[in-house]
Amino acid sequence: MDLIARLRDALPAEAILTDPDVTGAYAHDMASFCEAGTPAVVVLPRTVEQVQHVMRTATALRVPVVPQGARTGLSGAANASDGCIVLSLVKMDRIIEINPVDRIAVVEPGVVNAALSRAVNEHGLYYPPDPSSWEECSIGGNIGTASGGLCCVKYGVTAEYVLGLDVVLADGRLLTTGRRTAKGVAGYDLTRLFVGSEGSLGIVVRAVLALRPEPPQQLALAAEFPSTAAACDAVCEIMARGHAPSLLELMDRTSIRAVNAMAQMGLPDSTEALLLAAFDTPEPAADLAAVGALCEAAGATEVVPAETPAESDLLLQARRLTLTALERVKSATMIDDVCVPRSKLAAMLDGTAAIAEKYGLTIGVCAHAGDGNTHPTVCFDANDPDESRRARESFDEIMALGLELGGTITGEHGVGVLKKEWLARELGPVGLEMHRGIKAVFDPLGLLNPGKVF
Amino acid sequence: MDLIARLRDALPAEAILTDPDVTGAYAHDMASFCEAGTPAVVVLPRTVEQVQHVMRTATALRVPVVPQGARTGLSGAANASDGCIVLSLVKMDRIIEINPVDRIAVVEPGVVNAALSRAVNEHGLYYPPDPSSWEECSIGGNIGTASGGLCCVKYGVTAEYVLGLDVVLADGRLLTTGRRTAKGVAGYDLTRLFVGSEGSLGIVVRAVLALRPEPPQQLALAAEFPSTAAACDAVCEIMARGHAPSLLELMDRTSIRAVNAMAQMGLPDSTEALLLAAFDTPEPAADLAAVGALCEAAGATEVVPAETPAESDLLLQARRLTLTALERVKSATMIDDVCVPRSKLAAMLDGTAAIAEKYGLTIGVCAHAGDGNTHPTVCFDANDPDESRRARESFDEIMALGLELGGTITGEHGVGVLKKEWLARELGPVGLEMHRGIKAVFDPLGLLNPGKVF
Repeated sequence: MDLIARLRDALPAEAILTDPDVTGAYAHDMASFCEAGTPAVVVLPRTVEQVQHVMRTATALRVPVVPQGARTGLSGAANASDGCIVLSLVKMDRIIEINPVDRIAVVEPGVVNAALSRAVNEHGLYYPPDPSSWEECSIGGNIGTASGGLCCVKYGVTAEYVLGLDVVLADGRLLTTGRRTAKGVAGYDLTRLFVGSEGSLGIVVRAVLALRPEPPQQLALAAEFPSTAAACDAVCEIMARGHAPSLLELMDRTSIRAVNAMAQMGLPDSTEALLLAAFDTPEPAADLAAVGALCEAAGATEVVPAETPAESDLLLQARRLTLTALERVKSATMIDDVCVPRSKLAAMLDGTAAIAEKYGLTIGVCAHAGDGNTHPTVCFDANDPDESRRARESFDEIMALGLELGGTITGEHGVGVLKKEWLARELGPVGLEMHRGIKAVFDPLGLLNPGKVF
Repeated sequence: MDLIARLRDALPAEAILTDPDVTGAYAHDMASFCEAGTPAVVVLPRTVEQVQHVMRTATALRVPVVPQGARTGLSGAANASDGCIVLSLVKMDRIIEINPVDRIAVVEPGVVNAALSRAVNEHGLYYPPDPSSWEECSIGGNIGTASGGLCCVKYGVTAEYVLGLDVVLADGRLLTTGRRTAKGVAGYDLTRLFVGSEGSLGIVVRAVLALRPEPPQQLALAAEFPSTAAACDAVCEIMARGHAPSLLELMDRTSIRAVNAMAQMGLPDSTEALLLAAFDTPEPAADLAAVGALCEAAGATEVVPAETPAESDLLLQARRLTLTALERVKSATMIDDVCVPRSKLAAMLDGTAAIAEKYGLTIGVCAHAGDGNTHPTVCFDANDPDESRRARESFDEIMALGLELGGTITGEHGVGVLKKEWLARELGPVGLEMHRGIKAVFDPLGLLNPGKVF
């Protein structure tokens, strides 16, 4: 085949996978119910030049290219299309530089998030973005989807840590964006344009990332509430009073029970909502005491501060297990990712409960409450066509509610295949036209991740 | 005149200025040696609809438009071109909303930076970006140039506080970008594309800004060094040790003497470099003591911590006066704005001193040292053609040195007219092509701020 022969001109044999049994494993990410095609080939380049060769070949032969990281995404953005080249960046996994004076790291896209976190920790530094999949997901994937995590309420999302990029364009040329300085305003911010663009504008082959000094270990508390609304009141109060928690998470009753059922974590089964707050300040106990008092004022029935970092870790572990636990409730789940203004969080959760009731479904909610970012997870039986239909409808209704409350259809998971139809609704016609114009500048032939965002 | 008549269709008489004696005052910003043309008209709209009418008229008649804030810019980005419409946003100066729970403000572009800062302070909130001109400059202008300030070393630049925008496009259509939520990844980051675009892509008519809780009042120290290199060593050490100063500024001997000559501030005239550090932490005195010790280890001859916020303010006032004071050294100045990786700060300052010597010029340097952002200010006699030529050449050589050290030609002042020729050098041919493509998407007729960035 011409495509494969051309790829072989500059890629070693082991970097080109064509066996359908093997390439099938690269067809999709972790999103449920997103279509995935059959790739013609999977390539695993190790150098920028090899990536350039792949893109030049794709352009010459007009073959679509689907860039891929660790495939832990939750929106199908990395799913293959029929006949495409899957361009997996996982073998480009070198940490090129860690510089404590400039507080930057220079990395290849395949570096695993946790590997980078640990490497910079050894220099007394901190790379905050921590998606739930941080032990597996890659920095390139994090950049592609502008990933968040638990730390965002204090430290922000991936976008805020990307200073500069090397990007291979659709035609194989290399573009360098941004800088390795703390500040810089020369030209348009192309760096941020690539962050969150889900592989639709170019292939990130190198990134300059900002680091922070490592904060003290965080200490957490858990507060039980008689309603999600009361827990949301506490969230608003905590933020309005100027506190800066390093984590502020909410689990509803369904989530709590699912976690207990799976892992016997001893969470309070009978409570309606559990709020987890943590501080990595010099005196976390004092901050926790203040926040605990605000929780009680908002109606918390019980406030349990962790005495040690180990106790805190256990609480966070429970929170991190939520999605996995909810996946066991029924045969299938659809995980939503609606972010609303913090002040609208209670309305979002009440509305979600009403939607669950209307459709007769179990919808468990965990939320990055401090950011107003909810993950309503619709649990359903995929073998029951009617329940599946209701699941899909409720999923859509949750997004509609988010937009109505001034929110966004995706806080951190991205659009991918899953929310493609909804993107136009959020962007509006003028926004959509500008997006398409930008896509055409970088990828005039429409070869990069076609059928996804744009 | 057809243009004026059409503008009158939707703008009140007082919003249209045509008297050359009046419009002349709107021809340029505060940059020296940047050409400015003669505007055909200055318009001062008060509503989004009026801005839309101006842009529709400009598009219909193919008249260029130069958007303007408070004209405190230092790169000529707001300078008029011949026959243009100067579109001044200063009358759109309403603070529409301040929301302590969501930690956002919604503002019109003409709001003065200091006015916003004070208004949010009343709610216990903090809008960090603080350019030196903060008492005069407008938020719209800050967004256009992605302004920095003294606080950036801890709190970052304007870009990091812009969540969403309403933008009137060249053809008069309204585009809404971004969000009012803490997180959001739906579509490309158009918001950041507009930040720092110097009015070349659209007219910002409304902004959603992120706020922070108000930090404790900062406390500062001053440390005297026998060389700028020793001061830079201290800067690197402070940052490498994980300190988070709210300010870390350097003044060289020329700057110190200029400030003393103008304002009798009692700065140590005989020292080679003065480093100012401040902390707004819960225990600033402890942080200052640690940083003071690092300064001494790096060779500081004297470390003077402020005992009170009033003493701190006095130190910062001296720093804020530097540019004004340097303007009195000779009849003219050219203020540069080169940002290098922090680890290259000493090389940048030594190199700048060598350039001053080579050209026989006085070049005073103050620097946002924590960010590696230097402001070498070339002082010269504008009536002396040879000295003027040497000034311009030294100015360019400083930028070349910055690029060579891995830096950028502009850390926070922008490109405007002043550094237009240099932008291509920093971006490279591929970057330049992508920039031009984006410009064409938003402004296909090239009417927005022509002859500037793109």
